[in-house]
Amino acid sequence: MTPVATALVHHPVRDRNGAIVTTAITNLDVHDIARSSRTFGVERFYVVSPVAAQRAIVERILEHWREGEGATRLPERGDALERVTPLASLEEAIADLERRHGRRPVVVATSARPPEGRVPTTFASLREALTRSESPHLLVMGTGHGLADRVLAEADLVLEPIRGRDGYNHLSVRGATAILLDRLLGR
Amino acid sequence: MTPVATALVHHPVRDRNGAIVTTAITNLDVHDIARSSRTFGVERFYVVSPVAAQRAIVERILEHWREGEGATRLPERGDALERVTPLASLEEAIADLERRHGRRPVVVATSARPPEGRVPTTFASLREALTRSESPHLLVMGTGHGLADRVLAEADLVLEPIRGRDGYNHLSVRGATAILLDRLLGR
Repeated sequence: MTPVATALVHHPVRDRNGAIVTTAITNLDVHDIARSSRTFGVERFYVVSPVAAQRAIVERILEHWREGEGATRLPERGDALERVTPLASLEEAIADLERRHGRRPVVVATSARPPEGRVPTTFASLREALTRSESPHLLVMGTGHGLADRVLAEADLVLEPIRGRDGYNHLSVRGATAILLDRLLGR
Repeated sequence: MTPVATALVHHPVRDRNGAIVTTAITNLDVHDIARSSRTFGVERFYVVSPVAAQRAIVERILEHWREGEGATRLPERGDALERVTPLASLEEAIADLERRHGRRPVVVATSARPPEGRVPTTFASLREALTRSESPHLLVMGTGHGLADRVLAEADLVLEPIRGRDGYNHLSVRGATAILLDRLLGR
């Protein structure tokens, strides 16, 4: 199994009108995606925001659970949050993975609506690729109404959306990430 | 496919020391599990709390998204929240499903640690059962540190836990519910 990391992007993402915005970091996103990442053996979870004050909030959460009162009260939580790294941009996350593994990661963007004209990678083929690739993989999730077109265009792969029974696909980013990690890395 | 409903139980659940407590309803739990339920064709999502003031908060959320400002701003959300029903007890949820379908539902409890001496139902066998059963099924999730022993003991089935790569199983209830619905009802 090749190393896998997750990134939750707060900029650049779209709002409901398609404008590019910066969303606020949500405490529960950090906890939930850290726990899902830990469950499925994801080595790093990058929380990406260009706003330094927002990243400082994440650092404070991490300190509480890694070293503060939370670490004693609920040690499994610190174990999950250990892999959280707040960074200013997706480029920094890519560079961090490259530094850790000596290879540029394959960047996999996720989207509820992949761009027209681009063939999405299926869960089955990515799952298979993760078992034999020699490059680390970075799974990128967007907040708000999804990743900006630029991020999708620059990604090496775009993962197929999670479809329900009748085409409705408005999962929360927390729910979607849990499902995609289970599909790609679950037993 | 037989009708499937979900229930998120706030009492009786365990705290980290195993004591029976009532947890507070979390806004994001209601949204996330409603969205996951909608995605996978779940017909009802019961939010179970004996505290009337807490159920009233849920009713206010629902009103905002079904009829208020939210319904215009983000109609898919109202579509998901339409299936949310706050009730005082699991017994009321069971009775509601029985009234709707003329048959008592099969109650399936979920747990990160199924009780010793009880053989859990596998995802594969429950998935198969849902395609041919004539009874509605109620999937029951606990908040806090999980459903009280009594709920597990009284359930018709206990579902096997979601295991990650090395046995860590401390998913959030939001993440766990997304995964279990995908495994049981996803395409």
